[in-house]
Amino acid sequence: GKAGELLREHGLSVGDRVRIVRDDGVVVEGIIMPRSELGDDEHIVVKMDNGYNVGVRVDRIEKLEAPGEGHEPSFKPMEGEIEYDPKLPNVSVMSTGGTIACRVDYETGAVKPAFTAEELVGAVPELLDVINIVDARAVLDLLSENMEPKHWMKIAEEVVDALSDPDVEGVVIGHGTDTMAFTAAALSFVIEGLNGPVVLVGAQRSSDRPSSDAASNLIAACAFAGDGEVGEVTVCMHGWTSDEVCLVHRGVRVRKMHTSRRDAFRSVESIPIAKVDVKDLRNPKIEFLRSDYRRPEDGEPEISGGFEEKVALVKFAPGMDPEVLDFYVDRGYRGIVLEGTGLGHVSEQWLESIERAVDDGIAVVMTSQCLYGRVNMNVYRTGRLLRAVGVIPGEDMLPEVAYVKLMYVLDRTDDIKEVERLMRTNIAGEIEGGRVLGGFEP
Amino acid sequence: GKAGELLREHGLSVGDRVRIVRDDGVVVEGIIMPRSELGDDEHIVVKMDNGYNVGVRVDRIEKLEAPGEGHEPSFKPMEGEIEYDPKLPNVSVMSTGGTIACRVDYETGAVKPAFTAEELVGAVPELLDVINIVDARAVLDLLSENMEPKHWMKIAEEVVDALSDPDVEGVVIGHGTDTMAFTAAALSFVIEGLNGPVVLVGAQRSSDRPSSDAASNLIAACAFAGDGEVGEVTVCMHGWTSDEVCLVHRGVRVRKMHTSRRDAFRSVESIPIAKVDVKDLRNPKIEFLRSDYRRPEDGEPEISGGFEEKVALVKFAPGMDPEVLDFYVDRGYRGIVLEGTGLGHVSEQWLESIERAVDDGIAVVMTSQCLYGRVNMNVYRTGRLLRAVGVIPGEDMLPEVAYVKLMYVLDRTDDIKEVERLMRTNIAGEIEGGRVLGGFEP
Ligand SMILES: N[C@@H](CC(=O)O)C(=O)O
Ligand SMILES: N[C@@H](CC(=O)O)C(=O)O
Repeated sequence: GKAGELLREHGLSVGDRVRIVRDDGVVVEGIIMPRSELGDDEHIVVKMDNGYNVGVRVDRIEKLEAPGEGHEPSFKPMEGEIEYDPKLPNVSVMSTGGTIACRVDYETGAVKPAFTAEELVGAVPELLDVINIVDARAVLDLLSENMEPKHWMKIAEEVVDALSDPDVEGVVIGHGTDTMAFTAAALSFVIEGLNGPVVLVGAQRSSDRPSSDAASNLIAACAFAGDGEVGEVTVCMHGWTSDEVCLVHRGVRVRKMHTSRRDAFRSVESIPIAKVDVKDLRNPKIEFLRSDYRRPEDGEPEISGGFEEKVALVKFAPGMDPEVLDFYVDRGYRGIVLEGTGLGHVSEQWLESIERAVDDGIAVVMTSQCLYGRVNMNVYRTGRLLRAVGVIPGEDMLPEVAYVKLMYVLDRTDDIKEVERLMRTNIAGEIEGGRVLGGFEP
Repeated sequence: GKAGELLREHGLSVGDRVRIVRDDGVVVEGIIMPRSELGDDEHIVVKMDNGYNVGVRVDRIEKLEAPGEGHEPSFKPMEGEIEYDPKLPNVSVMSTGGTIACRVDYETGAVKPAFTAEELVGAVPELLDVINIVDARAVLDLLSENMEPKHWMKIAEEVVDALSDPDVEGVVIGHGTDTMAFTAAALSFVIEGLNGPVVLVGAQRSSDRPSSDAASNLIAACAFAGDGEVGEVTVCMHGWTSDEVCLVHRGVRVRKMHTSRRDAFRSVESIPIAKVDVKDLRNPKIEFLRSDYRRPEDGEPEISGGFEEKVALVKFAPGMDPEVLDFYVDRGYRGIVLEGTGLGHVSEQWLESIERAVDDGIAVVMTSQCLYGRVNMNVYRTGRLLRAVGVIPGEDMLPEVAYVKLMYVLDRTDDIKEVERLMRTNIAGEIEGGRVLGGFEP
């Protein structure tokens, strides 16, 4: 192809740094990306230092050269042996894909799920001062938008396996940020009897960008996992852009609230479990922000159940036709999570279809698109009517968490009374209830 | 029925204050609500002072009495004539229903869309110091979860009619909070050439509660409408719980972010247009927070177009089957707004159905469930693949606003190129673009 030819002519290939001058004078500098997945050989795609990709049409390229300054690949495996330090805690580190593991793509263009302790330490040498990576697993290599319940199960199994080693203090899971909160919720429900912390970690900026949060997030996550204080599934991400502090969020109360900022993850009407100061990467400092977390249990954790896939999340908006509910009923769905308005409402025009769904034995759960606050279906006529036809109030659960939980609950039981009871009972901290002290800050 | 009988026996009726002692000693005090819409005559429903309704089973009632202290109906029409004050601005006030107008329900039990200047002034006498209510219209009487595009049109027509009076400075619209932001977006698009402010206002707590925000919100909204500085559709609601300040949000950048708090409405990655200090209700003080608002136009406003109803909002979650997209295609939908993850993604498994939709001429627009931040479909493989099959990036539009806008745009054109151009062009401030100075604070 044209693009490949041009690169070869210049002795360049995917992963190399390049400087391109376009016919209109525009200069693009960055790393050559693998041949566009779009099957287009008319463009060379360059990942610029600001993290964005641009395609330059081959026939508009005036000059193409390797730039003077080289650019070190950011994840060079460490050379030599890693020494075991008996004073440091043992942590199992897993990779599932996403930005935090994406240097593989940028450098080789290959989808390479390799993820060794040497590579990790090569990328973040400070890890050597914080934990012993006793176990590094390449579990998956997915952008997290492609995660499915079967992947949640796979990760859960690896976690349970890793924690069955009595020498392992905790587990860190590198994960794409897009659906990290969903996975965290899934693991929170499906793993029982956790004997150590499980910490999901991602990066909003890839490690080839100066502003990357990959290293500090990873260090904070490893420190928290190694600390071994908590028997819960958590998410550890950058806390404030102004300061090098990470927050450890409860896996069932966290949400990605910004498309691009490093401090995108927020505990929603819930106080994070801890903060980790990572100003000095070699010496992360953990400070607990609440004390009502679950302690690690004795014995080994296990998988409890799985996820029913015939569950839908339906966000309501004015003017939307309830026929989408009929569709799910007709398709044999077992559960529907509604993301309603305000205290938990949808148009009264939806009542008939909802009633039909409930009569068909489908569990219909109400959450709020406000995200913050609690559903209360006793205040307005609409709420009472919805209750009367059998809608289950989702309490203060995030819609996304209620969705994952309903999948989990429907895998366990098909008794609708029991479904309602379980949905309204706190299992893993997902119903914060009146326990919040802290603030609403959307 | 049992409940009715018991009340009659005690000389009580709907709207009266009552004190009930249940057989287990529980005491419920509040206002008797109209006979339960649930067709249940076994319960008496009482609205308590904390705003919540409880039903007490008739056969568990031990004592039932009118309590010693009376409770004044909170919206008593003013007696006598309202004097016109030539020094004050003229404002048209409309009611569409919701908590801000709900005293009608509580007192008479009837669905009574009456809404006169006298009633307003009776409820909030301080209005007399702020504006002349030259025009009070009971446009609708709906809980806003029941609003539909046809109601948006009805409100738009009333607004245009009210503003065709050259003596009217601005319009205030009382509205339920649940879908207020949707209506604000709809009016922002469908009214052209605004010659004065249009201010939607609601209340999170009804006016029979001590903590009600009804009066202060209404005063702030009227003051802002009377000020006449802005030619935009806005939402005026309580700003901070700690202080008596209301915020005036741009109608296309605002979202209800909490189910129950008074400060539930937030400008999302956008600075509110103004704040209104209402510590002294008789003397509200407006302070503008930005200057890039639209000024009122000369001449009269008009309705431009309408809303295509064959549009769906689809929120993505891991594990969700793309068959819901096929369903919408088969049902002849013309537009789908996706609420994807992160920078604007869905699972690659959705690509085929999306491609089919696009091939069928359906406009598919991508927004992010992060809510904050901007869609960018050039960063990850998934985004590029989605672009390649024709998905339209929704820029930094809120998903709800993109949904309303797509209805509006599809009513104007069926040329898909033009749809894409309009969706990506700022019409009413809905694409904030790089213009934000202020903060991300979810
Ligand atoms: N789209 C990517 C973004 C990231 O890695 O953070 C993912 O979620 O996998
Ligand atoms: N559900 C009501 C709440 C309110 O009035 O604020 C409505 O939106 O109409």
